[in-house]
Amino acid sequence: MLLKELKFDSTKHTYIKNITDVVNDVIKKAKVNQGFTVVSSRHTTLGIIVHEIAEPNLLEDIVHHSLDLVHEDKRSTRVHKDYKHPTKDYKHRCQDNPYCDEIDEDYNAAAHIRALTFSHSSVTMPISNGKLELGKYQEVAIFEFDGRDGKGKNPVRKRTVQIWISPFDEVEVID
Amino acid sequence: MLLKELKFDSTKHTYIKNITDVVNDVIKKAKVNQGFTVVSSRHTTLGIIVHEIAEPNLLEDIVHHSLDLVHEDKRSTRVHKDYKHPTKDYKHRCQDNPYCDEIDEDYNAAAHIRALTFSHSSVTMPISNGKLELGKYQEVAIFEFDGRDGKGKNPVRKRTVQIWISPFDEVEVID
Amino acid sequence: MLLKELKFDSTKHTYIKNITDVVNDVIKKAKVNQGFTVVSSRHTTLGIIVHEIAEPNLLEDIVHHSLDLVHEDKRSTRVHKDYKHPTKDYKHRCQDNPYCDEIDEDYNAAAHIRALTFSHSSVTMPISNGKLELGKYQEVAIFEFDGRDGKGKNPVRKRTVQIWISPFDEVEVID
Repeated sequence: MLLKELKFDSTKHTYIKNITDVVNDVIKKAKVNQGFTVVSSRHTTLGIIVHEIAEPNLLEDIVHHSLDLVHEDKRSTRVHKDYKHPTKDYKHRCQDNPYCDEIDEDYNAAAHIRALTFSHSSVTMPISNGKLELGKYQEVAIFEFDGRDGKGKNPVRKRTVQIWISPFDEVEVID
Repeated sequence: MLLKELKFDSTKHTYIKNITDVVNDVIKKAKVNQGFTVVSSRHTTLGIIVHEIAEPNLLEDIVHHSLDLVHEDKRSTRVHKDYKHPTKDYKHRCQDNPYCDEIDEDYNAAAHIRALTFSHSSVTMPISNGKLELGKYQEVAIFEFDGRDGKGKNPVRKRTVQIWISPFDEVEVID
Repeated sequence: MLLKELKFDSTKHTYIKNITDVVNDVIKKAKVNQGFTVVSSRHTTLGIIVHEIAEPNLLEDIVHHSLDLVHEDKRSTRVHKDYKHPTKDYKHRCQDNPYCDEIDEDYNAAAHIRALTFSHSSVTMPISNGKLELGKYQEVAIFEFDGRDGKGKNPVRKRTVQIWISPFDEVEVID
């Protein structure tokens, strides 16, 4: 089993970012011809999707839908006079998690619910011929629901995504 | 690792279709007693679900909910005077994807968002005793969100679903 | 491959319950240092999630959102004068499933749709250093959408969740 960790800063609030080339580069570097890849998030407001990622307007439609469907907490730092999506009341405060030992004064229940609704904590993809076995329009991406730009009290979001590769000796095709 | 590809035409717009027997037949033909099966879609508007599939009224409730929750693009070929579900404006056009080299003049942002919300690009299921290990009401199905009947400008949808089987030598049950 | 079955009664309607310690205990008992765990539900109205589970107000926000977004069947035994979430008409009746050979006179289309929207029939998680490889706030939980308390005609819900463990010899970290 092979492991590659991707580490990056997530400074924009809600966005989708293609990581297909990164995953394929890891598979190539590991010289794995066939097997499975599990791409997994280590976060609860950033998930993984396999979807059509190459058309920017589609990504914008998806992001807008996620913001319209799951209303933002009225207390969120995102909600200001120019905020265009619906808001509502939630109970959750980040700092109430018993594991929380960092500065986090935001109210991100909506980001959690969007992650549950629109993404996965991990996705499993076959590898064949030394790369991800994907359809013509399929690519793998991270879906960030709660990036932080470092302005205000909350620090920039540090994110980690893991690429696990489990090689297999051969693939037998069944007619 | 064993691979079986299912290929079929998808001519109805939004529907759920049971493939449990097909997957179990592949497992039987491959003489695999225990292991994992990954059923994966090669499309971004057709996903896989494990759910209760045998009650047709439930499938109708699920399909109607998906059409009501995620509004159709006003420009879609589906939207005509008898269309009963909500519509709205999106930005996405199929032909704007840089990989698009076929005739596709439709507007299917809603189908993409429904696939993200209600289905999976792949599902992982255990195999034991030579068949899928599923509960009494569980079955595996494809959930199509963007079939095309071939009338109008867009051709019939050709779909491919892959069944990957990874056999294991034995299962040890932990008390 | 190792298998542990968790069996429990589910008497509350909609709730999220942490099973991280149970899964880690199974991994420890099985003396598995690295590999994959697949946690799978045998039900269509109870799914698995990997999410932030330790903050009770967040769980309440998630549960309320699921009840507000997917309207309950007007005929459901849950809907009485104090029911605070929206209701609507569905077609599904539990007893119409051809496999149904038990007393089940409820109307749970909404529970099915919530399970499809907010949970997974199975989740795949890496194991490293003898325990689940999870981020600081990530835990694994069951998300029950249709518990039954045994009052009225329908018996208490008996639930089974399976923990499948596939060990690997070693993990090689790629720089």
